[in-house]
Amino acid sequence: MGALDEEHLDEELENGVKLGCIELGFEEEPETVAIKDAVKVLLHGLGEDINREGLRKTPLRVAKALREGTRGYRQTVKEIVQGALFPEAGLDNGVGHAGGAGGLVIVRDLDLFSYCESCLLPFQVKCHVGYVPSGLRVVGLSKLSRVADVFAKRLQDPQRLANEVCSALHHGIKPAGVAVILQCLHIHFPNLESAFLDSNHQGWVKVLVSSGSGVFENDNAEMWGDFLSLLKFKGINAETARRTDSSNQCWCPSQSSSSEKTSSNNGAANPGMVTAVTSILRSLGEDPLRKELLATPCRFVKWLMNFQNNNLEMKLNGFVCGGMDLLKPNGEVTPSEKQIHSELNLSFWSQCEHHLLPFHGVVHVGYFCTEGLNPIGKSLLHSIVHFYGCKLQVQERLTRQIAETVSSLLGGDVIVVVEANHTCMISRGIEKIGSSTATIAVLGRFSTDPAARAMFLQSIPNT
Amino acid sequence: MGALDEEHLDEELENGVKLGCIELGFEEEPETVAIKDAVKVLLHGLGEDINREGLRKTPLRVAKALREGTRGYRQTVKEIVQGALFPEAGLDNGVGHAGGAGGLVIVRDLDLFSYCESCLLPFQVKCHVGYVPSGLRVVGLSKLSRVADVFAKRLQDPQRLANEVCSALHHGIKPAGVAVILQCLHIHFPNLESAFLDSNHQGWVKVLVSSGSGVFENDNAEMWGDFLSLLKFKGINAETARRTDSSNQCWCPSQSSSSEKTSSNNGAANPGMVTAVTSILRSLGEDPLRKELLATPCRFVKWLMNFQNNNLEMKLNGFVCGGMDLLKPNGEVTPSEKQIHSELNLSFWSQCEHHLLPFHGVVHVGYFCTEGLNPIGKSLLHSIVHFYGCKLQVQERLTRQIAETVSSLLGGDVIVVVEANHTCMISRGIEKIGSSTATIAVLGRFSTDPAARAMFLQSIPNT
Repeated sequence: MGALDEEHLDEELENGVKLGCIELGFEEEPETVAIKDAVKVLLHGLGEDINREGLRKTPLRVAKALREGTRGYRQTVKEIVQGALFPEAGLDNGVGHAGGAGGLVIVRDLDLFSYCESCLLPFQVKCHVGYVPSGLRVVGLSKLSRVADVFAKRLQDPQRLANEVCSALHHGIKPAGVAVILQCLHIHFPNLESAFLDSNHQGWVKVLVSSGSGVFENDNAEMWGDFLSLLKFKGINAETARRTDSSNQCWCPSQSSSSEKTSSNNGAANPGMVTAVTSILRSLGEDPLRKELLATPCRFVKWLMNFQNNNLEMKLNGFVCGGMDLLKPNGEVTPSEKQIHSELNLSFWSQCEHHLLPFHGVVHVGYFCTEGLNPIGKSLLHSIVHFYGCKLQVQERLTRQIAETVSSLLGGDVIVVVEANHTCMISRGIEKIGSSTATIAVLGRFSTDPAARAMFLQSIPNT
Repeated sequence: MGALDEEHLDEELENGVKLGCIELGFEEEPETVAIKDAVKVLLHGLGEDINREGLRKTPLRVAKALREGTRGYRQTVKEIVQGALFPEAGLDNGVGHAGGAGGLVIVRDLDLFSYCESCLLPFQVKCHVGYVPSGLRVVGLSKLSRVADVFAKRLQDPQRLANEVCSALHHGIKPAGVAVILQCLHIHFPNLESAFLDSNHQGWVKVLVSSGSGVFENDNAEMWGDFLSLLKFKGINAETARRTDSSNQCWCPSQSSSSEKTSSNNGAANPGMVTAVTSILRSLGEDPLRKELLATPCRFVKWLMNFQNNNLEMKLNGFVCGGMDLLKPNGEVTPSEKQIHSELNLSFWSQCEHHLLPFHGVVHVGYFCTEGLNPIGKSLLHSIVHFYGCKLQVQERLTRQIAETVSSLLGGDVIVVVEANHTCMISRGIEKIGSSTATIAVLGRFSTDPAARAMFLQSIPNT
């Protein structure tokens, strides 16, 4: 394979980025140890056995991910920009703006992620930055991304993130003006009701915020027109962008009334778990008494408790008999008379047990039944999906558990496909933002009949 | 901003990843120094002043980018996978495949980049990996991405990359089988003819390759059907995937006949530059005598020489007079009688002078002229764009130079928008794969009349 030397860069391999010399003693650093201990408290509070194989290294993984994901606290903007300002001529003569004197420069569609200061979950950011050069100099294009990332890698609120990026670039580059637009996506909180009401529900709360300085300071400045025109043909509607909601209402679904209402654990959160999250905030370099953070530990614990290990098994035996009876109106139905029936796009949320981070997506279920007879309602299937999602999970197990339960209801010929986006794939070192995961379980006839599998798989709509 | 400590992590800020303790002396390491010296030879060969401000740090930037982009030579797969194998049950009973015993697991749409061993330019990879668990264990999902990245971060050919990823995962996970599909994109080489013939030309050579082991070893294995079905609804056509071209023809446009034919420097490449590139290969940890690499230095130098500083100015004075005469058939035309005329999507290639990496995209030109009269042909505009692209450039300067030249032909009311993808934004530390850059120059009436600007900007099609 052409490898000449085989250094063992464990830390990088685990994190995707190497964390420098401070990393060599990473596992022993007091902040890491404190977060690890706090995560053990959380796992206990969830009713989990922290010595279970899948969870054994979870405290360390969570500590690594959190410290790396908030490394912006340990970075400054000055050095990023200072080494990357380049002299660049403006117009030789004539009236106008170009090059280092006034030509608008935009970098679009920078994918970032940040942590929500309200609930401690990661959120995705599509960042668009523009500036108008001044003083016959321009900044290296990648620096716009690097500066944005410094502020994204902290506990944030979208509007504050936009303001901080804008302000830092303005002071760093000293241009005629800076414009920042962020499109932010925050995962919804588990809410069985809304999932049932809205089957197209994609699991995201969306918000668009903007910030401007200098020639962009005034929202009606004509420069915004140019900036938004150049974004518009990348899919951003100018009207939406200018109607940035300036109300003080927090976007985080942890603060929405419906989430509070339907939460299954409205009571006081486990005080030990809340204290543990408070200590995590402190270990990340934050002040837990900052007013935006005061209720964060409580909210994060409420989120977590959606996935507590309740040791319940689904009691569906009564239903099974009824269901199977329906299949046999005239005695035994032979397999060849049955047809494939599909229930597609059943949404779910779950929590990755390796990283304590959400993954969410859709489940597709296929089974054989006599034409016209639907022995099992979509809502029961959705309940099954919801039940197995609301645990600390891995996607492979979730897929198997759904398949086994559906199989016990429907006689053994079952196929289950789970498609998911894993927050741990986007918010940790590897940051594979566009990636998605698919898993499949095939039981009975679906495991032996490729044509049946193919027929079901073809019925799944493109996403 | 909530920053508690402000460590100055220069290396990370420049690179986007910290390179560990070995990095502290990075600039003094013999490999870095050798690459820096080689890059100076290349800049000299291009006719550049290596002390010019924009180029002063280019040798170090190129050395950093190349060493980071080929860090896979210094990584091994074993540690990545070994710590991330988790016990996972299969089916409790019944016939079928699920969980840790046979349920197919797929991670789709992993964005990677690699370096073409044939020409040393980066290429983009969309990677899809699947495996069938065996032995009641599964691997952490992110490891599929990390392992793929180890082999992507080397000098590669798409098929070999697919084979190496497949083989490494098979040996690391010991599953029932591994399937890998890569969609690779390689930049075209500058070719004025094809750009003129095909205005929709997007600047990419595309290839799709696949590799399979175990239950995927046979191309006709039924498991491929499941895998491709699950990719199909993410936009991959099964028929295309199975028709993987097994011919030995290299995909790299540096080897295509048309590129050779139209190259402006068909003669022998500058031997000093070729020797310099050979020394770069050696510094990256490669064997320049490996047969696939024998002609690489020569090809890379040929690519570079498309952007040599030829000190030519565009001589368009004769044309200008003729052009302007056309505008005045009945004496002076007042501005109000003129209308905005647009030439959109003029494709270009250029080479970023900060990183010696390509950037490419489209130029949109707007100007005022009397209705019905088109004083300047599209092909002349395209020649102007091509002329200023074929240098070591920055996008801001390219935009200004095109605007000034068009303005000298067309009387001063000119707007130019350049939209580009910068390889330096995707192939170095920040890896912002979806990002794009837009720059604008406005001269004369376009700088004072927002409505005229808006009218032109709205005429640019969404991309």
